[in-house]
Amino acid sequence: MLDGGDEELKDTMRNSKPVKRFIVIDKTVHELYGSKVSQYFDERGVIYKILPLTTTEENKSMELVTKILEEVHHLGIDRRSEPIIALGGGVCLDVVGLAASLYRRRTPYIRVPTTLLSYVDASVGAKTGVNFAGGKNKLGSYVPPVATFLDSSFFQTLPLRQISNGFAEMLKMALMKHLGLFELLEVNGSKLLHAKLQPSKTCSGSEMEDSTAASMRIAIETMLEELAPNLWEDDLDRLVDFGHLISPELEMKVLPALLHGEAVNIDMSFMVYVAQQKGLLTKDEKDRIIQCMLGLELPVWHQECSLALVQKSLRERLKHSAGSVRMPLPTGLGRAEIFHDMIADDVICQAFQKWTEELSSFGNK
Amino acid sequence: MLDGGDEELKDTMRNSKPVKRFIVIDKTVHELYGSKVSQYFDERGVIYKILPLTTTEENKSMELVTKILEEVHHLGIDRRSEPIIALGGGVCLDVVGLAASLYRRRTPYIRVPTTLLSYVDASVGAKTGVNFAGGKNKLGSYVPPVATFLDSSFFQTLPLRQISNGFAEMLKMALMKHLGLFELLEVNGSKLLHAKLQPSKTCSGSEMEDSTAASMRIAIETMLEELAPNLWEDDLDRLVDFGHLISPELEMKVLPALLHGEAVNIDMSFMVYVAQQKGLLTKDEKDRIIQCMLGLELPVWHQECSLALVQKSLRERLKHSAGSVRMPLPTGLGRAEIFHDMIADDVICQAFQKWTEELSSFGNK
Repeated sequence: MLDGGDEELKDTMRNSKPVKRFIVIDKTVHELYGSKVSQYFDERGVIYKILPLTTTEENKSMELVTKILEEVHHLGIDRRSEPIIALGGGVCLDVVGLAASLYRRRTPYIRVPTTLLSYVDASVGAKTGVNFAGGKNKLGSYVPPVATFLDSSFFQTLPLRQISNGFAEMLKMALMKHLGLFELLEVNGSKLLHAKLQPSKTCSGSEMEDSTAASMRIAIETMLEELAPNLWEDDLDRLVDFGHLISPELEMKVLPALLHGEAVNIDMSFMVYVAQQKGLLTKDEKDRIIQCMLGLELPVWHQECSLALVQKSLRERLKHSAGSVRMPLPTGLGRAEIFHDMIADDVICQAFQKWTEELSSFGNK
Repeated sequence: MLDGGDEELKDTMRNSKPVKRFIVIDKTVHELYGSKVSQYFDERGVIYKILPLTTTEENKSMELVTKILEEVHHLGIDRRSEPIIALGGGVCLDVVGLAASLYRRRTPYIRVPTTLLSYVDASVGAKTGVNFAGGKNKLGSYVPPVATFLDSSFFQTLPLRQISNGFAEMLKMALMKHLGLFELLEVNGSKLLHAKLQPSKTCSGSEMEDSTAASMRIAIETMLEELAPNLWEDDLDRLVDFGHLISPELEMKVLPALLHGEAVNIDMSFMVYVAQQKGLLTKDEKDRIIQCMLGLELPVWHQECSLALVQKSLRERLKHSAGSVRMPLPTGLGRAEIFHDMIADDVICQAFQKWTEELSSFGNK
């Protein structure tokens, strides 16, 4: 752990002036790993400042960005050669990324995701952001990190709910473009969840290790395939937006009841019913998807995800997304299309009714 | 006036939904031109919101950015096709540019400079920014506008001091890389200043119009030559940094006593003495430059620009600029080089002493 980038750091240190690093670390991560981080920099003679912060959706704001910037400014770092390091979940990575992108108009930064969700999702791409005026990620920038260090051993200390949370974004990529990943999650999801995606000796040896590694690799690869050609979102037709049409509104409304991946999953669950209603998915395909979600211990329905909220979210989407609803929907297992026209209101209503009838008993877990 | 981009706007309006525009306008500009702006949008049936703001160095802050963003969010604009428009001087353009670059991670914006300085300087390039923790433009982004509309008739309502202010950035480009522009300012500067760079009938006809147009054209072209290949400042060796090593510290220290161009000119005036002390300029060349500055009614010395402030600014530069001082200095009239090593302290001290002896009588105008 924490060995990534070591050679680069040593290279830098062979040069004259002492190396400086500013590290923002989520408070919980700091409690668990803070002493190891300090030890790492102490042993290498680095001048460093560690800033532990509570990083949650509720305080993911410009105020938190400003707080980080004040501390960065106080330490004083070289604008081009001394990256800011973010250690934590998606909120931490997003906020630090924005702070770095603003400081002196662009200071390099490094992402070290410590949750499964940030490992497969926030670690990829160029987006930074904070919430604003009650809206999720309304402010931000497109500035990629200079490096992302992936270390899944952090997951050992995550609660199971946080692992489920990450699986939601993996399932999204499976539903949109990878039947193999879907089948892997359908068959092994529950086992992978309870093993916290660790290549553990207590699991059934090499087979287990393979599905662990494969699931994370495919999730990241499919994400990269989608994001790399469209890093600045010039094209607003994005398969990765699946699960992200209704969920931002829902997530912000019930804060902090739902984790990001949970809200995404509720959105996806509803959209699967919409896809079936439109004749894009068979009943069997729809049932397999919902079963897979339940196997991953993800919520599939929520009391606060009302028909009114669904309709409002879709109208907002239409208003802000260059005049098109741009709705990605599954058209089978592991494949999808983007629909530009607003879905007929009766389709939405019928899907909503069926969704509620069949799944409300699983709600509000 | 205000006819630029008209065809594009009409094109957009031929499409279905009504056009929306959010306009931030400097308070003084609003008093002078607000009704014309409203009339322009009224006549075209545009849904618009005009936000007049006091935009000065003192309130060039993240708070002002947030204030703009709240209003933008309230109006609701399409994230890709409804640009935010900034009408004002450099502070207004910088602040609005930052707000636009943050809103939904990037919203297009248009710059309409109304001062000479913003016309030749802030109108060019990708920089946005605000002051932070007492430091000038410490936060910002590199996001170019989708368009800049240049209209020099705004200068008619500027006080002369604001025209002088703009000449400082034009003189910078002349000193760094254009002997022709220097000679033009040396010979015609005072006339151009008092005609407020207008192609006026009271001036001597076509000759006057030529030097007016030529001076602004060359200033912008030389600026573009420097900025276009280095829009994201990957290369920190920048001739356009001449006049910007000591001046940020000076400008912020005496706020609001000096306008930006005035602080830049005091910095350039001192650096001309440094260049002479290093044997890069002859006494005659130095004297011609200072005379040209005086002809443009720019300050050439300031009580608060102390030796201590000079030394502190250069040390800070060394600390933050990838280990090199990167000091552009004139090496003749209209040509320059970038010096990477720290200038010897005795050269700085001797230059400072001579500068003060010869120019302090012109100080604190």
